Amino acid sequence: MDNQMVERILEEVKKRLSTQGAAEVQPPLKKEEVKKEAVVMSVSGLTEFVGTAIGDTVGLVIANVDRGLHEKMGLDKKYRSIGIIGARTGAGPQLMAVDEAVKATNSEVVTVELPRDTKGGAGHGSLIIVAAEDVSDARRAVEVALKELDRTFGDVYGCDAGHLEFQYTARASYCLNKAFGAPLGKAFGIIVGAPAAIGVLMADTALKTASVDVVTYGSPTHGNSYTNEVVLTITGDSGAVRQAIISAREVGLKVMRAMGQNPVSSTKPYI
Amino acid sequence: MDNQMVERILEEVKKRLSTQGAAEVQPPLKKEEVKKEAVVMSVSGLTEFVGTAIGDTVGLVIANVDRGLHEKMGLDKKYRSIGIIGARTGAGPQLMAVDEAVKATNSEVVTVELPRDTKGGAGHGSLIIVAAEDVSDARRAVEVALKELDRTFGDVYGCDAGHLEFQYTARASYCLNKAFGAPLGKAFGIIVGAPAAIGVLMADTALKTASVDVVTYGSPTHGNSYTNEVVLTITGDSGAVRQAIISAREVGLKVMRAMGQNPVSSTKPYI
Amino acid sequence: MDNQMVERILEEVKKRLSTQGAAEVQPPLKKEEVKKEAVVMSVSGLTEFVGTAIGDTVGLVIANVDRGLHEKMGLDKKYRSIGIIGARTGAGPQLMAVDEAVKATNSEVVTVELPRDTKGGAGHGSLIIVAAEDVSDARRAVEVALKELDRTFGDVYGCDAGHLEFQYTARASYCLNKAFGAPLGKAFGIIVGAPAAIGVLMADTALKTASVDVVTYGSPTHGNSYTNEVVLTITGDSGAVRQAIISAREVGLKVMRAMGQNPVSSTKPYI
Repeated sequence: MDNQMVERILEEVKKRLSTQGAAEVQPPLKKEEVKKEAVVMSVSGLTEFVGTAIGDTVGLVIANVDRGLHEKMGLDKKYRSIGIIGARTGAGPQLMAVDEAVKATNSEVVTVELPRDTKGGAGHGSLIIVAAEDVSDARRAVEVALKELDRTFGDVYGCDAGHLEFQYTARASYCLNKAFGAPLGKAFGIIVGAPAAIGVLMADTALKTASVDVVTYGSPTHGNSYTNEVVLTITGDSGAVRQAIISAREVGLKVMRAMGQNPVSSTKPYI
Repeated sequence: MDNQMVERILEEVKKRLSTQGAAEVQPPLKKEEVKKEAVVMSVSGLTEFVGTAIGDTVGLVIANVDRGLHEKMGLDKKYRSIGIIGARTGAGPQLMAVDEAVKATNSEVVTVELPRDTKGGAGHGSLIIVAAEDVSDARRAVEVALKELDRTFGDVYGCDAGHLEFQYTARASYCLNKAFGAPLGKAFGIIVGAPAAIGVLMADTALKTASVDVVTYGSPTHGNSYTNEVVLTITGDSGAVRQAIISAREVGLKVMRAMGQNPVSSTKPYI
Repeated sequence: MDNQMVERILEEVKKRLSTQGAAEVQPPLKKEEVKKEAVVMSVSGLTEFVGTAIGDTVGLVIANVDRGLHEKMGLDKKYRSIGIIGARTGAGPQLMAVDEAVKATNSEVVTVELPRDTKGGAGHGSLIIVAAEDVSDARRAVEVALKELDRTFGDVYGCDAGHLEFQYTARASYCLNKAFGAPLGKAFGIIVGAPAAIGVLMADTALKTASVDVVTYGSPTHGNSYTNEVVLTITGDSGAVRQAIISAREVGLKVMRAMGQNPVSSTKPYI
């Protein structure tokens, strides 16, 4: 094969690859990754393995936690079994998913830890531990959480420069209470912008749009794990919370587009 | 098309791509990224959007910050308007740029936060907020900062293994004072090496070269946001500060090259 | 060259590239990277440069640390010379390597700092400083450490979703004591899982398998530098420590495979 021909093919290949790249979501999630992981797997030779989901999320259970580990983890003595939800990409989606899981099962959220992750992206990963007296409850909680993730990733919009994330629930439960101090049973929303500058603007927009109360305002070195995000959480009347989120989303997407970005959701928006 | 031909083309393509890859800057900045972002954009339908610059930097303004957010951000009551400079890659370049911006405008730096970022690189991103009584001052500050960035990225040398960064000003102002405690009006320099080991050596070289005073010495878990950097800031006679930086740069580049790396600047060195 | 032909070639190229990609180790170490770096280099015009090794590790020495820097670094006055080991990827491998180095040389570990790094991966990088009265001792310590790294990376298993890491020594020395409080002269092991969820399960398995004592249990925001890891360190009878590690490794690899991953070691397993 002559060199000139290879040269021309190479030119073409590079041109095509770069064009396609621009249209694809980069962090926090690549499309192929989503396809691979969106399906919750539940077959494995390992009794502790429950399944996986989007965002490199893995769900595990331990029927009878080792006594030494139990102590190191600071677990309440009444709980023998734990469910573990961990992910490389995403804190909000997993927190919302586990919130639904503890509503639906006889389990309790015992620890929430948010590493600095997203595989080179600007945000958090997650490590959430639920406890139950019975392993079947712990397993059920993990199963419910994994199934919710496809939905809760719906308003995570990724692009090369960063990401925008929105979460909404009409009724916050114990996971959101543990993580943010969300008032139980009330409407609750999460608004995340990365780079953090966009999050400041979205927070301002959300609070101007509707009469909602700020629960937390997290910035890179105050409340976040050094992520390049501003995270606003709000509560109030369900219509107001939803409206605040929708306005923030609108302004966030506009800024991203003005930056020359094309933020897209990996799954299906739900808010 | 026969399989053997595809095989040969693939071989060629891979060979070329990998050869080219080696010569390109990787983190903290890809070349195409620089080209795309170096031009400050200022057209957008959004009144809050000022523009973008190198390093995924975005500049925004809020004319009249929401009262609830105002409080959460800990802003002084006299300021109604803020300017926001945020970036995925770079702390030093943005800090220097904002330092020039506050010199040139009637604005004040209110918060500096440095996330752990650079998109998989070893360093910081940034979130810097300036405040002004009038939105036109806030906007002007952001504009000046965005325009300075092309210059202040001049001595940021990236490669696959890490990066080296150098900043110099003959007269430090309020942003550098806020971020590092730089003495106002005096010559000031920043020396950054990543991985951190190189930063230790550059710090030693800088201090041996010229009679300068250490303002801060930051390492991954002491002063930095868990970045893999050593950050030395120095003050003193302007000639001495500049000389210390130049010597550090020389030794840093030598070590990088000895590691088999080819660190290059994304824009044009200015020191 | 007609467009249709390019289209077909492109299809083929993409198909091949994605197939090959799946089989390759991604973070924490790419194969080519390993090949390039595994050889310790020791030629350079720079007296301070000792060499490089796997994980973007660099080894440097300073014969006579600048007095101002000496103070900022909090070094004991009796030490004039330091050796610096820094890396983008890996904390455990470097800590074990330096542990061997201080056993073999007349040097002392003075600081251990673990940045959040691994170039977009889920773990730590490292900055370890050893001190000696004589530069030849500092240099020797760095040389020994660099040579050990190929071995100590043996049980680091990387894949796209995360990594597993295992370290074992029959006799812990001053570096492991400094970093984790390892009892001197006793068998010691490190078990790391990322994403952190896997680390919890491995810790449980390790502690159930053999009668060992927990030295530390680190999670993303308690003991780690916001990495997405759980890090368990154990001590006890050498056979028990080794057995605990082997069982943890087995369960960790099983979970990774159940996640659809193929974790592989960059060098040669040694435990």
